[in-house]
Amino acid sequence: MSETLEKVAVQTEESRTQTRRAFIKGGLAVAGTVMFTKAAEAAYDPKSAVKAYAGKKEITDVLTDGPQRRMLGKGIMSSTYSMPSVYEKEVRKRTLEWLTPDTLATISMTPIQSMHGMIVPNGLHFDRFHGGAPDIDPATHKLVIHGLVERPLMFTMDDLKRMPSVTRIHFLECPANGALEWKGIQVNSVQWTHGMMSCSEWTGVPLSVLLKEAGVKPEGKWLLPEGADASGLVRSIPMEIALDDCMVAYAMNGEALRPGQGYPIRLVVPGCEGNMWVKYLRRIKVTDKPLHHREESSKYSELMPDGTIQRFSWVQETNSVITYPSPDYKMSGPGRYVAKGIAWSGRGRITHVDVSLDGGRNWKEAKFTSVALPKAWTRFEFEFDWDGSEMLLMSRATDETGYVQPPMAQLRNAVGTNGVYHRTAMVTWLIHDWKGNRAGEIENVQF
Amino acid sequence: MSETLEKVAVQTEESRTQTRRAFIKGGLAVAGTVMFTKAAEAAYDPKSAVKAYAGKKEITDVLTDGPQRRMLGKGIMSSTYSMPSVYEKEVRKRTLEWLTPDTLATISMTPIQSMHGMIVPNGLHFDRFHGGAPDIDPATHKLVIHGLVERPLMFTMDDLKRMPSVTRIHFLECPANGALEWKGIQVNSVQWTHGMMSCSEWTGVPLSVLLKEAGVKPEGKWLLPEGADASGLVRSIPMEIALDDCMVAYAMNGEALRPGQGYPIRLVVPGCEGNMWVKYLRRIKVTDKPLHHREESSKYSELMPDGTIQRFSWVQETNSVITYPSPDYKMSGPGRYVAKGIAWSGRGRITHVDVSLDGGRNWKEAKFTSVALPKAWTRFEFEFDWDGSEMLLMSRATDETGYVQPPMAQLRNAVGTNGVYHRTAMVTWLIHDWKGNRAGEIENVQF
Repeated sequence: MSETLEKVAVQTEESRTQTRRAFIKGGLAVAGTVMFTKAAEAAYDPKSAVKAYAGKKEITDVLTDGPQRRMLGKGIMSSTYSMPSVYEKEVRKRTLEWLTPDTLATISMTPIQSMHGMIVPNGLHFDRFHGGAPDIDPATHKLVIHGLVERPLMFTMDDLKRMPSVTRIHFLECPANGALEWKGIQVNSVQWTHGMMSCSEWTGVPLSVLLKEAGVKPEGKWLLPEGADASGLVRSIPMEIALDDCMVAYAMNGEALRPGQGYPIRLVVPGCEGNMWVKYLRRIKVTDKPLHHREESSKYSELMPDGTIQRFSWVQETNSVITYPSPDYKMSGPGRYVAKGIAWSGRGRITHVDVSLDGGRNWKEAKFTSVALPKAWTRFEFEFDWDGSEMLLMSRATDETGYVQPPMAQLRNAVGTNGVYHRTAMVTWLIHDWKGNRAGEIENVQF
Repeated sequence: MSETLEKVAVQTEESRTQTRRAFIKGGLAVAGTVMFTKAAEAAYDPKSAVKAYAGKKEITDVLTDGPQRRMLGKGIMSSTYSMPSVYEKEVRKRTLEWLTPDTLATISMTPIQSMHGMIVPNGLHFDRFHGGAPDIDPATHKLVIHGLVERPLMFTMDDLKRMPSVTRIHFLECPANGALEWKGIQVNSVQWTHGMMSCSEWTGVPLSVLLKEAGVKPEGKWLLPEGADASGLVRSIPMEIALDDCMVAYAMNGEALRPGQGYPIRLVVPGCEGNMWVKYLRRIKVTDKPLHHREESSKYSELMPDGTIQRFSWVQETNSVITYPSPDYKMSGPGRYVAKGIAWSGRGRITHVDVSLDGGRNWKEAKFTSVALPKAWTRFEFEFDWDGSEMLLMSRATDETGYVQPPMAQLRNAVGTNGVYHRTAMVTWLIHDWKGNRAGEIENVQF
């Protein structure tokens, strides 16, 4: 910015006495004199990614003061916690009632199709409960670190909040995201195909700081974190991961964790399966071997084609999805579109995303529209012209390790069809022929 | 991570049949065998930044299952929008009732002292109203770009959401933040000294894309954005700023803007005064000169010592504040503390932050605990030992342009004491003597 623009000292100025009324009148006067020429209207390209109206009548109407300009708004004077607009009431987490046995073990999925950017607001972060949501008073909650340590330690919430902290943005994903796709169940919403996932800013104490203070004994190689809730979920976490970038988090997106997210504290295990991010954390036991707990045998392990069980497939591999156009929307006719999507990898940064319009035969690179942070959602966009004929829309992400998101057939060949977890292959949206009887529809096809 | 850790195929495993009951019993058994030696207890350094309890009795108590482990939680099965824990009900936006004339022109301030990380959750984003909160239906809301353009254009919300977008994290600050300090009013809370500020992730259409589409005429040098609400607030924005990094935003932290933040659309003018981020945006007029509107003469301009008015002081200069320890808290006695704070600059990235314990005589560099993004909050921490004597705690931020946050006296010398806005000088927290009659208290002192 130039210095002239930066600081302009104005001594006298006739406009200083200008009142609001005068300005509104001025605005209306100008509206009346907007020049609409045939040339200008013709020059506007309806094929542009910008869809806009350039005619005279309606614009003049809009420039006339609307009712809100002539009416004072609602007054506000109190201690408040704001809520979304009433017009946004359809943007909600949703459960599939038949998917889980009862209300104590539910999955509430994030409306990915309505999300923008990298951050999911706390009210819409997906929830997975294994024993209902406990009521925990932070004033009495404690965290214990014990087992193979020099000094077993106990922390109050105040202790934890007064310690060194770190803040990072990371996605959190259930490995069962996309499970219905494994089972050949066609679900026509990104909320159901990818909604067991959110991305938030987490703040907490680096686990390495806590472990250093407790003094891990040489034979201490694994951690067993356990929550204070009824679920008894425990995961075995190798010391290598624990000392890397894990944290004991007390805040998400700036405020305390929500009850569904482990209030008052949870483990954050960036890039790894959501169930390892143990909620309502009450103790971490240091051991010399993994526990092979129920939650890493009956659940969260993979039945391979040869009958073996693959355990400890912790990392959420490179993945991506186009959220618009997607089965939650309809095409509005041939023309230019901006495809919008999310890419993420449990191994680090996303380095590029390609988009295919023909079911994976040809690929073109998409543009990032957000910063690409490690183990976080990265936003991409891709402009394309649709001529109205049938189209197979796909995205393919690559991360900094060089891992390329595979097509479904390749993943199926590698791990078989017994599994429930880690369906990280590409998804394909079929855009139906504009001249056909399903014109405008967008369908999730197993491809 | 090693390959061995990554994929462990386990065929048979006795622990596979382990039940939850067995594990809980196992847990209890282990708790009983935690080794507490005199040596271990003695080795724990109470002067560490880590405050923790290392005694035997209480830890054993904690390892015994609490009530939440023996009782199923609350069931959840519905379409939901989650809310914060009931234990967090004191973390709220607050208004100073005497500060504004009525409920139609209020300032609800963010509880900065309770915030973590870079992101402020949408429910706690500070609000400033000039004419109350209007009720705007996004289905009928339009944005018009007119004035000195080739093609006046009108956009619906759907049009805007289908266009190319960008996502970025930026702070939003009222230039009156800290105004009470100018007036010599001592306020002992960061919520009142700095709470007219938040930081969020914004998603919207780059203003440059909209202006390019409309075709700005060569004589078009300024923009006059106007909202649809009753306030009639207009600011004059030079084309240079508009084409840099401004956007028409429809989303904050992933979801639609909150009503207090301009739902359904607002202008985002990164690094500049919050009042320029026009809410409820309904039109942008391109002109050849600034308007010198009421809101840039009676308000949002600076009365200099020589009687001149300084207008268009758009940029929020480099600033910082220590949020803990701060007047909202009490010291708990001599020992090690981790000072935590926020730094930000309207001109770009924060490059470093220094902390002084002696009122600005000596400075040491603080550590960043978040990523440093341009025109966004950056988190810093600084560990120090407090011997219990009186201490003057300050922070000083430097940005990538080399601008160093000034002490209050320097700022006062430069711009006098008539002003209300842009009090971006350092603040000083006086930590009272631990042996005195105000032991533990932390006080905001004009320094």
